[in-house]
Amino acid sequence: MAAQKIFDKRNLTMMMDLYELTMANGYFEDHADNYVTFDVFYRKNPDNGGYAIFAGLEQVIEYIENMHFSEEDIEYLRSLNIFCDEFLEYLRNYHFKGDIFAFREGTIMYPNEPILTVHASLIDAQLVETAILAEINHQSLIATKASRIVRAAKGRAVSDFGARRAHNMDAAVYGARAAYIGGAVGTATVLAGQLFNIPLSGTMAHSWVMYQDDEYTAFKKFCEMYPDNSILLIDTYDVLESGLPNAIRCAKEVLEPMGKRLKGVRLDSGDLAYLTIKVRKALDEAGLNDCMIVASNSLDEYSINSIIEQGGQIDSFGVGERLITSKSDPVFGAVYKIVEVEKNGERIPKIKVSETVEKITNPGRKKVYRVYDEEGRAISDLLTKYDETVDTSRRYRYIDSKKPWKNMHYENYTVKELQQQVIKDGKRIMPTENLDDLRQYVKDQLDNEIWVSELRFDNPHVHYLDMSPSYYEMKMDLLYKSQKNED
Amino acid sequence: MAAQKIFDKRNLTMMMDLYELTMANGYFEDHADNYVTFDVFYRKNPDNGGYAIFAGLEQVIEYIENMHFSEEDIEYLRSLNIFCDEFLEYLRNYHFKGDIFAFREGTIMYPNEPILTVHASLIDAQLVETAILAEINHQSLIATKASRIVRAAKGRAVSDFGARRAHNMDAAVYGARAAYIGGAVGTATVLAGQLFNIPLSGTMAHSWVMYQDDEYTAFKKFCEMYPDNSILLIDTYDVLESGLPNAIRCAKEVLEPMGKRLKGVRLDSGDLAYLTIKVRKALDEAGLNDCMIVASNSLDEYSINSIIEQGGQIDSFGVGERLITSKSDPVFGAVYKIVEVEKNGERIPKIKVSETVEKITNPGRKKVYRVYDEEGRAISDLLTKYDETVDTSRRYRYIDSKKPWKNMHYENYTVKELQQQVIKDGKRIMPTENLDDLRQYVKDQLDNEIWVSELRFDNPHVHYLDMSPSYYEMKMDLLYKSQKNED
Repeated sequence: MAAQKIFDKRNLTMMMDLYELTMANGYFEDHADNYVTFDVFYRKNPDNGGYAIFAGLEQVIEYIENMHFSEEDIEYLRSLNIFCDEFLEYLRNYHFKGDIFAFREGTIMYPNEPILTVHASLIDAQLVETAILAEINHQSLIATKASRIVRAAKGRAVSDFGARRAHNMDAAVYGARAAYIGGAVGTATVLAGQLFNIPLSGTMAHSWVMYQDDEYTAFKKFCEMYPDNSILLIDTYDVLESGLPNAIRCAKEVLEPMGKRLKGVRLDSGDLAYLTIKVRKALDEAGLNDCMIVASNSLDEYSINSIIEQGGQIDSFGVGERLITSKSDPVFGAVYKIVEVEKNGERIPKIKVSETVEKITNPGRKKVYRVYDEEGRAISDLLTKYDETVDTSRRYRYIDSKKPWKNMHYENYTVKELQQQVIKDGKRIMPTENLDDLRQYVKDQLDNEIWVSELRFDNPHVHYLDMSPSYYEMKMDLLYKSQKNED
Repeated sequence: MAAQKIFDKRNLTMMMDLYELTMANGYFEDHADNYVTFDVFYRKNPDNGGYAIFAGLEQVIEYIENMHFSEEDIEYLRSLNIFCDEFLEYLRNYHFKGDIFAFREGTIMYPNEPILTVHASLIDAQLVETAILAEINHQSLIATKASRIVRAAKGRAVSDFGARRAHNMDAAVYGARAAYIGGAVGTATVLAGQLFNIPLSGTMAHSWVMYQDDEYTAFKKFCEMYPDNSILLIDTYDVLESGLPNAIRCAKEVLEPMGKRLKGVRLDSGDLAYLTIKVRKALDEAGLNDCMIVASNSLDEYSINSIIEQGGQIDSFGVGERLITSKSDPVFGAVYKIVEVEKNGERIPKIKVSETVEKITNPGRKKVYRVYDEEGRAISDLLTKYDETVDTSRRYRYIDSKKPWKNMHYENYTVKELQQQVIKDGKRIMPTENLDDLRQYVKDQLDNEIWVSELRFDNPHVHYLDMSPSYYEMKMDLLYKSQKNED
């Protein structure tokens, strides 16, 4: 991945909130170098969906591995007159030395479970917060949105056309990466194709048609130049009266004499359901049954679903702004919360109590298991204490945290631990994964593991997050204690 | 700006849609090196507002000045088997050689006027499209959103706290830049502060409070370390029962003996209107009238407006996800359209006719003037042909394009041309502007030039975009001709 290294030559270490440094300096001055555990989790699936897709881990690892403060960084920080000289000296040779555990990229994930866990000294754990959240929030958002759009397209191709509306360069490039993991077949963004080996797609610009003396000439020149990639943009003047007849004429008079077929036509405006039905009919009548119809223009899972319901004849969707910004829900709200502190050899679980019940955190270092039934369907996720193991040869009593009074058991089940260690003592121990493998991993889970009722766009089934009895007991203990402290 | 250069060492040239290269290769093979003119414009203000703010120009210029295809880029493009060898050779020494004209960054702008114009050879003009749109769409979006939020805050400070929810690194950093231009007082993102000399702000993390043995100890240690920057986060356990009394105690027992005052308290959850009224009262009763209240948590122009209406007592807003993603309207839809082609010494204006009237483009190379009344208020913008001048010593007949039958005149008016040349023959001729100057420029326009009725959040006045009689005639001619071609 030589190309990727060039792209990431930037020193992004300082892409952090000021308070990460203020806290770190505070811990430094306080000689507080305890090990602590922070969990990353989120509280709500985007678009009220039934699941989300974990993405961005590769870039988290790159960020952390490359963390260092340059001389210029130190001088800038000194100029703020906030930090003590010893801390600035310490930053000069700073490297992250902690451990990181995470879901595999592409894992289907659900609210309130730790998708990534940092176990490190206070300062290490503090300094990585902002970048971890920015990478995971962005790429998980786009991977999840792509997955929704791809599912709405029901087997038809979906490509990312969003670069021009992305929130700047990284959003275009890493957004294309996330969209590919989520199921898009490719991207129009050349740099993303180059960096991540994503298939590129692209057709023709309106300006090509407008520059030429007339539409037919524009089509003719394009087909002569790209006889194997002849996708013609037919909506510059009038789809049915001008673009379509000119495209058919081009297929007959330019391509067929060369022994070539018209590959496709593209529409970028108008009533896509109505127009594509007409276009399909005319193409078929002209013997161009193999000519595909590509459509773009403000598409997302909702409009694609509607177009298909109306009988729209589209083979391939180019999806731009509503994918690359996740327009209908553009914020993925993963947070980073302290769950355990180690003091004098003791591990002290921490809980954040809140007025809002949903904001109470799951305390302590923990394990997350996905629990499968006999057919391999994921029936729930399970939180246990870090030192617990699950013996799948026996039925397992768990707590449904919403109905803790019920006597619940798993029977005939298997489990998979969802977190793997990816950084050990500051060094990557997980190789860079192939993007096609991650994309296939997402597809396999959606096709084979996840309950169909979680895939519904409206009111999906809420995936269960169960707890082991001893984990639940520990959490309740902390809640009662916090209540006593208040009284 | 040495630091900035380090950050931008990346070769971003390939951040373009594939079709830019396909078109360019087509023009190359066709020996088409005519000069053409493309306009950048948008069709709708974000959030149904009355205006938008132009931002991102500096990064457009940087991208264009640095455009070059590396050996690796060429080899990647060759591997796609789309481009002819001669074109790939041509790219090896490619540099943009055209001219670019643009509004000054920070200019208040309105739909359908050319905010940036590229006058260049076909290939040059094609290759810069994606990056120009991505930079302008992103930064204009965030500058506009910031401006709305700052206006809702009615003089109270607004800081960008959004990095962790931004659409990746660039979105955080350039978003902070745009937010500052739009009126934010600062950012929490250290890298943005460093690169663009934006004031930094930041307070305390929940984890600081949770790590320490109790809340009072956490506050005490923080005040001892940062006696001049003592902003205490009071919502970790219970604002009114715990955080607030502990903060007041800290002011009395820790800070006052040092001769220091408690600088502020911060709330990041709960009912901000209700709680801050209580907090203000308690602080005042404790003699801490000068202690400011900072609030964050899902804020935007709508929630800030509501909090202030309810009497909420907040001095400074930390605004995160809803600013950095422009959550309520996360897409700025600027487009890039060909408006003129030069052939054999003749300038041929081009128009894109569409089924949708709003999508018909304004053809031809043109000038844009802002027209001011005697008091310096901007009463409208005016499009003229490129070779027209406006003689403000005489009354001026213009066409209201929505009511072209009316006999309309400007009297006692002044005008300002809005586009300036920023790149000439591929070289920057505009110096990098100081961000504080741009921020002041935005403020001056909002305070002194723009009609108050355009600043309304609901149903703002729609700014007029007038046309000179000869410009209007040219556009109508083209529309009638396009109609004849169709019949």
